[in-house]
Amino acid sequence: MSLKFNLPTPLSRAGAMVLHLVPRWSARLFWASSGWRRIYTQGSSVRLKRLGYPRGVYSRLACRAYSAAPGSPEVMLTPERYPVQRLPFSTVSEEDLAAFECIIPGRVITDPEQLQACNVDWLKTVRGCSKVLLRPQTSEEVSQILRHCYKRNLAVNPQGGNTGMVGGSVPVFDEVILSTALMNQVISFHDVSGILVCQAGCVLEELSRYVQERDFIMPLDLGAKGSCHIGGNVATNAGGLRFLRYGSLRGTVLGLEVVLADGTILNCLTSLRKDNTGYDLKQMFIGSEGTLGVITAVSIVCPPRPKAVNVAFLESPFYVLVETSGSSAGHDSEKLTNVLEQVLNSGLVTDGTMATDQRKVQMLWALRERITEALSRDGYVFKYDLSLPVERLYDLVIDLRTRLGPRAKHVVGYGHLGDGNLHLNVTAEAFSQELLGALEPYVYAWTAEQRGSVSAEHGLGFKKKNVLGYSKPPVAMKLMQQLKAMLDPKGILNPYKTLPDQA
Amino acid sequence: MSLKFNLPTPLSRAGAMVLHLVPRWSARLFWASSGWRRIYTQGSSVRLKRLGYPRGVYSRLACRAYSAAPGSPEVMLTPERYPVQRLPFSTVSEEDLAAFECIIPGRVITDPEQLQACNVDWLKTVRGCSKVLLRPQTSEEVSQILRHCYKRNLAVNPQGGNTGMVGGSVPVFDEVILSTALMNQVISFHDVSGILVCQAGCVLEELSRYVQERDFIMPLDLGAKGSCHIGGNVATNAGGLRFLRYGSLRGTVLGLEVVLADGTILNCLTSLRKDNTGYDLKQMFIGSEGTLGVITAVSIVCPPRPKAVNVAFLESPFYVLVETSGSSAGHDSEKLTNVLEQVLNSGLVTDGTMATDQRKVQMLWALRERITEALSRDGYVFKYDLSLPVERLYDLVIDLRTRLGPRAKHVVGYGHLGDGNLHLNVTAEAFSQELLGALEPYVYAWTAEQRGSVSAEHGLGFKKKNVLGYSKPPVAMKLMQQLKAMLDPKGILNPYKTLPDQA
Repeated sequence: MSLKFNLPTPLSRAGAMVLHLVPRWSARLFWASSGWRRIYTQGSSVRLKRLGYPRGVYSRLACRAYSAAPGSPEVMLTPERYPVQRLPFSTVSEEDLAAFECIIPGRVITDPEQLQACNVDWLKTVRGCSKVLLRPQTSEEVSQILRHCYKRNLAVNPQGGNTGMVGGSVPVFDEVILSTALMNQVISFHDVSGILVCQAGCVLEELSRYVQERDFIMPLDLGAKGSCHIGGNVATNAGGLRFLRYGSLRGTVLGLEVVLADGTILNCLTSLRKDNTGYDLKQMFIGSEGTLGVITAVSIVCPPRPKAVNVAFLESPFYVLVETSGSSAGHDSEKLTNVLEQVLNSGLVTDGTMATDQRKVQMLWALRERITEALSRDGYVFKYDLSLPVERLYDLVIDLRTRLGPRAKHVVGYGHLGDGNLHLNVTAEAFSQELLGALEPYVYAWTAEQRGSVSAEHGLGFKKKNVLGYSKPPVAMKLMQQLKAMLDPKGILNPYKTLPDQA
Repeated sequence: MSLKFNLPTPLSRAGAMVLHLVPRWSARLFWASSGWRRIYTQGSSVRLKRLGYPRGVYSRLACRAYSAAPGSPEVMLTPERYPVQRLPFSTVSEEDLAAFECIIPGRVITDPEQLQACNVDWLKTVRGCSKVLLRPQTSEEVSQILRHCYKRNLAVNPQGGNTGMVGGSVPVFDEVILSTALMNQVISFHDVSGILVCQAGCVLEELSRYVQERDFIMPLDLGAKGSCHIGGNVATNAGGLRFLRYGSLRGTVLGLEVVLADGTILNCLTSLRKDNTGYDLKQMFIGSEGTLGVITAVSIVCPPRPKAVNVAFLESPFYVLVETSGSSAGHDSEKLTNVLEQVLNSGLVTDGTMATDQRKVQMLWALRERITEALSRDGYVFKYDLSLPVERLYDLVIDLRTRLGPRAKHVVGYGHLGDGNLHLNVTAEAFSQELLGALEPYVYAWTAEQRGSVSAEHGLGFKKKNVLGYSKPPVAMKLMQQLKAMLDPKGILNPYKTLPDQA
């Protein structure tokens, strides 16, 4: 019997725990540091070691560096790699630029150098050729911009921190880039309820800092926190590292302000835990990837900051990262120690380490958060983000290793054990059509057979839009098209994304 | 400074606590029992008393008895009390009855006696005059019924346990009643993830029992649990007693199967914690009160059953019911005792009692759960269900007592402190237009001024549909109408409900 099937049961039942599966491969990358090795040679009575400070490992934390390195090789234009045809939108004219300049003076960017980073996704797999970047500061400005674009039939690509994995955040052709970067103001924070209201362009890490100073935490956390915008998090229904503990954004987002395709401002920015007055329209925009409206402000409920955080990093045969949060350090440590003694004594776990100190906790989390970055240094990465029944979570990884053989450098499976979310990554020296053919549609069909999701948390964006049918029936896809047609009849909002190409 | 403003702060920050405000008035109703009085005369060092068994109080638990008492006075027909016009739907013919009989043989009810209970809401405030009740067992049967009704332009009133507060669950005129009562099968339960998939007509209390036997609990609990159906809970986005602890149904419902107005079956019945493939269509149906589709099956994630539950009932000047749930009885009791000693020593709380034993816990909860029933025995009840900023939660109650003077028997405010949800009840000897005029639109305008919700968890149904505009802007109302037109172009699903009368 495979150990991974037993492990989740006792741990996942301990309410406050968050479980993450880390690939052995990726952890080893990190363990090359001698500071880390040393830790593993110390012993203790319960075979758990408190983590010592590694030397020099932590000068930079786990946040991804997204800005395009100058001089890096050109990324192929999207229409050159993918079969996609430009739709008959208008082209931005001098008159359009003048109109934009009138709405947001000094914040209409046409400098090619500045546009470069906004045209390419951070994975460097897709590239658009937009000629204009708009940086509004208010919802009213967004409204005026969209009113103009709607009238003129100009396609618009809403952009937050540009940290997406599926090419949803950059233009495919010459769409106008509408950035939320300057919409970064906190509007209000309620220090009893923990309800935060802010503009869409606030960076997640900055919000985290803001609410932590007030004894709360953000209900979500991502590896990309240093760059991603809260508006983008909501637009993509980001999952991330606190999902198991605090639940989905569909529960924690209380209100949204959204600008519709024609420039109408839809103000559903309430700060109420409960509101059953009519249909919950904001839900339509959560996870719609900017294709139904542009989120300009968010109201979100933040949980109280836990007084005690414990992180355990365990192995055999998988690396498992467990975080507990609670209100009493003594109680939490006692509970975790009990569980760990149990799994150690039973042989489920053979070794591990624990941390409570914030810096050490961050170090352990970095093992998990830096996997994406580590993978990107292994060559070309074929990325899949799947939801599967937890008892089948790893089977596909094993299956693919056999199927692909030496064609793949590494087949890596990690993810969120408690959520049944597998991040499947296949690396190779370079992109290869043959390897792609061995992976697709095989991976999607395998997932569909398990009634899984072909995109657990990354969304569909540009790169995955045509696999929607593996997880949703034709009736659902038709309804989605109807919803899009209702909210964006000209189709100007983030075109070529989310929904499959129409037959 | 008023005590109620201070109390929530330290308590609500202790993660797992659920806070409920119980009106002094209602608790006194219950305390008439000598068994209860006795408890309050015992002392202990920290002034907290373990609850003893009251005698004879608990022969019947808190679940509402909804079936119409035979011989009770007739409830006025809805169109006689409210200004509402029948829309030009067809009338059920003999041919229609024959067609229904063909789809669900032996389950087409036309007996007036049996129809009586389904035509009247349990509060006995609205009454329809439907001539036919259909009791399908499968989604396929629901689909065939709706296909027929859609073709024939017959209006349909989907009905679960008929426990709603706003007249949403009974016909207004002669709509066909489509009951989920026979759709009461559990489809699957996953004993690691706690994901339950079941038909819409499963009674909440029965599901509770089912999952508790497997060491999980339902993420929601209501006073009406003995009668309400899970499909109705989802259709009305029920809040209830575990909302603060386990969050909204928008996060815990993972999948739905819905039959659309024309009979199309929309199968989004996945059991995945994460699924970002396209728009989350199921969200449209959660809280739509059967006006956009008929929910036929539900997939919902159940939290692990807490190993320790503590309930504290405190007073000064409000009665506050606090429930904690956790995995260690010792830890939880220690935490709660610390908090209680703190609030007692500071004078915030003057007296109280605690319980851990399940039966005693239920007794304390009954104080809260039976308020609705108790109120209904005080005469005619004007009911409001408001979300307000927590610091203004009780102000409206005080305000109304002054405003109404002797015209009201009682102005009672209770609710969910942690959710900012006030249940405002005004009782009088009988219905009075004058009292109604003093209450409305005053209560709604007061709530709108605080940017509150005029329906926190009860929904709009028939009785509140025209107050939507106090909580939602015209742009939102217009979008809701568009959504309704898109999903139910003939308007046959639960007409006269949720959306305001069109001008």
